[in-house]
Amino acid sequence: MPPTITPWEVQGEVDYEKLIQQFGTEPITHEQLNHIAQQVGEVHYMLRRGVFFSHRDLDWLLNQYQQTGECFLYTGRAPSGNTHIGHLLPWVLTRWLQEKFNVDLWFQFPDEEKFLFKQDLSLEDTAAYTQENMLDVIALGFDPDKTHFLIDTRHAGILYKHACRVAKKITFSTAKAAFGFQDSSNIGSVFYTSMQAVPAFLPSAIAGRNIPCLIPLAIDQDPHFRVARDIYPSLGYYKPAVLHARFLPSLQGPEGKMSSSSAPDTIYTTDTQKQVEEKIKKYAYSGGRSSLQEHKEQGGNPDIDVSFQYLKMFFEPDDKKLQELEHQYRNGDLLTGELKDIAIDKINVFLQQHQKQREKARNKVEQFIYQAE
Amino acid sequence: MPPTITPWEVQGEVDYEKLIQQFGTEPITHEQLNHIAQQVGEVHYMLRRGVFFSHRDLDWLLNQYQQTGECFLYTGRAPSGNTHIGHLLPWVLTRWLQEKFNVDLWFQFPDEEKFLFKQDLSLEDTAAYTQENMLDVIALGFDPDKTHFLIDTRHAGILYKHACRVAKKITFSTAKAAFGFQDSSNIGSVFYTSMQAVPAFLPSAIAGRNIPCLIPLAIDQDPHFRVARDIYPSLGYYKPAVLHARFLPSLQGPEGKMSSSSAPDTIYTTDTQKQVEEKIKKYAYSGGRSSLQEHKEQGGNPDIDVSFQYLKMFFEPDDKKLQELEHQYRNGDLLTGELKDIAIDKINVFLQQHQKQREKARNKVEQFIYQAE
Repeated sequence: MPPTITPWEVQGEVDYEKLIQQFGTEPITHEQLNHIAQQVGEVHYMLRRGVFFSHRDLDWLLNQYQQTGECFLYTGRAPSGNTHIGHLLPWVLTRWLQEKFNVDLWFQFPDEEKFLFKQDLSLEDTAAYTQENMLDVIALGFDPDKTHFLIDTRHAGILYKHACRVAKKITFSTAKAAFGFQDSSNIGSVFYTSMQAVPAFLPSAIAGRNIPCLIPLAIDQDPHFRVARDIYPSLGYYKPAVLHARFLPSLQGPEGKMSSSSAPDTIYTTDTQKQVEEKIKKYAYSGGRSSLQEHKEQGGNPDIDVSFQYLKMFFEPDDKKLQELEHQYRNGDLLTGELKDIAIDKINVFLQQHQKQREKARNKVEQFIYQAE
Repeated sequence: MPPTITPWEVQGEVDYEKLIQQFGTEPITHEQLNHIAQQVGEVHYMLRRGVFFSHRDLDWLLNQYQQTGECFLYTGRAPSGNTHIGHLLPWVLTRWLQEKFNVDLWFQFPDEEKFLFKQDLSLEDTAAYTQENMLDVIALGFDPDKTHFLIDTRHAGILYKHACRVAKKITFSTAKAAFGFQDSSNIGSVFYTSMQAVPAFLPSAIAGRNIPCLIPLAIDQDPHFRVARDIYPSLGYYKPAVLHARFLPSLQGPEGKMSSSSAPDTIYTTDTQKQVEEKIKKYAYSGGRSSLQEHKEQGGNPDIDVSFQYLKMFFEPDDKKLQELEHQYRNGDLLTGELKDIAIDKINVFLQQHQKQREKARNKVEQFIYQAE
């Protein structure tokens, strides 16, 4: 059975190369990374290491930015649970892009989305999760003067009108093909993609001129923009460029996606050091051999080792240190337990800092929420 | 071919008795009219004469009101053109109900609706029509302290959240059956009914307690509430009661509906006295005989005479005068030309007053638009 990849379901092993073909996106090239380096002086490790592996119209975006010095970033989070470390991944790159490109970020919290797609979730639930999720975004260090949170139910007075413009151009048939809707789907879920389409042109609508948009997101969100990108030009706006991230794997295996609904498999941003240690030690899928002797002789496999993948994708930005770990693990000098200890330590150092900033963020929330002028 | 009756299309001869069966509503009874008379001292001629001919849960509403003295009214207008005299019909009764019951009215202007359903209409068009249509509502004399205009794109910050609650409970399949959607329908049109459902419970949501709602509307709008009434209880709200009006016929025949898109067939609220005279004289379908002699001998048929129907349904509130006209027309004493002159005069007297109030309304619009507290 092929894997299921929609914005609301990721099941099975994900073949990222196939997704590029299936979704009709482009792999990110060395030339593109060089182009980024030319413009901002460096390339983020998540780009270098292929965590962001695919794109739409990146060349266009980089050329536009080079010529005009102008663009904006757009990403988001549909509140349906507490934030886990997998959620942070695209936001970490987005924060870096904001700093390096020195541009505005529009961050959408579609608090109706998961309400519409999950039977048991109430709008009160998603409102509470929105509050918590906002803290995690702020904690990453976004610039409050350049970051604008849009909360769908709160900002519908701004968003809905534009969403109708988008919706008028999307048939049920198109939505069905892109998202797998059926006659039994509720009409709110069917409409929803129109709301997600709006922030890609809202800043242009507000400014009264076209500003290029770059959307860093996890690959499962691509269908929204695959559909909407066909529509933007007819509304008078640019097609946004998109950067696609892989999923941070769940603890139980290198393929698939960390899920916010499976607590023991998942490392939340609010987990204690002890919880992180226990989860990694107990659940983190290992690329090590079944016996110490075998491991020493044949070496481990970092490509399937979740602890190594966490370090590579997120928690060890230093290329030299990472290469050393990879080398030692492959040749058997580094044992699974030792590798896990390193991952635990790195994650906990990150989370300690994150949790400190997260608490400080409680007083900053209103500062980040977009106020129409 | 049976007539098409949806909120967006009324084609063919309308058989109102059949609609009661088809839509599953109830005819309004003499007992119900007496019940209204008991409570407010009189019965409006549009009720007495069967212009409002059908209902849902009217007994429940009247009992609720009798016991608690509380209810509110809800009606609306989807801006897609200039107001014609047919539009005014349900609003005239609504104004009377507001005065007699001494209750609030919530008046929705879903300025996205016709935008979503009509290819050539822009949101700028519907915004302009909204401004004009509001003048016609205000001109009828609604109480500014008890009347609250909701404009969908402007009030989406209040409406959208509740619309999502409704939308979650309506499948595409249900919407398809009620409104005739197809796979080629756009996803905004599919979602729209959720927005129209909201004002029936918004005052209850704001007050934090259930308030009974009465919706006077033209029968073609019933499908929205046929669907939504199944949902309100699961959201914790009463099912609203509904009063259904017949359509004011177009100039060209006693069956069917006056349309805002066929200018010569239609009397607009801004027509000059000369225009009204010309339209009635030239187009008003006559129940008179083909020759003067035949008319004198056999009499005219007021049941199919559009001028007489306008007087009966709207412009001659005095029962005695109307009966006299009917009698004279039936026995041939009153000629078609004379009947037309009476209708022209009555309509022009009404419109002269209406246009005066309409101009005065320009300064009052903001007073009527709902401001969230």
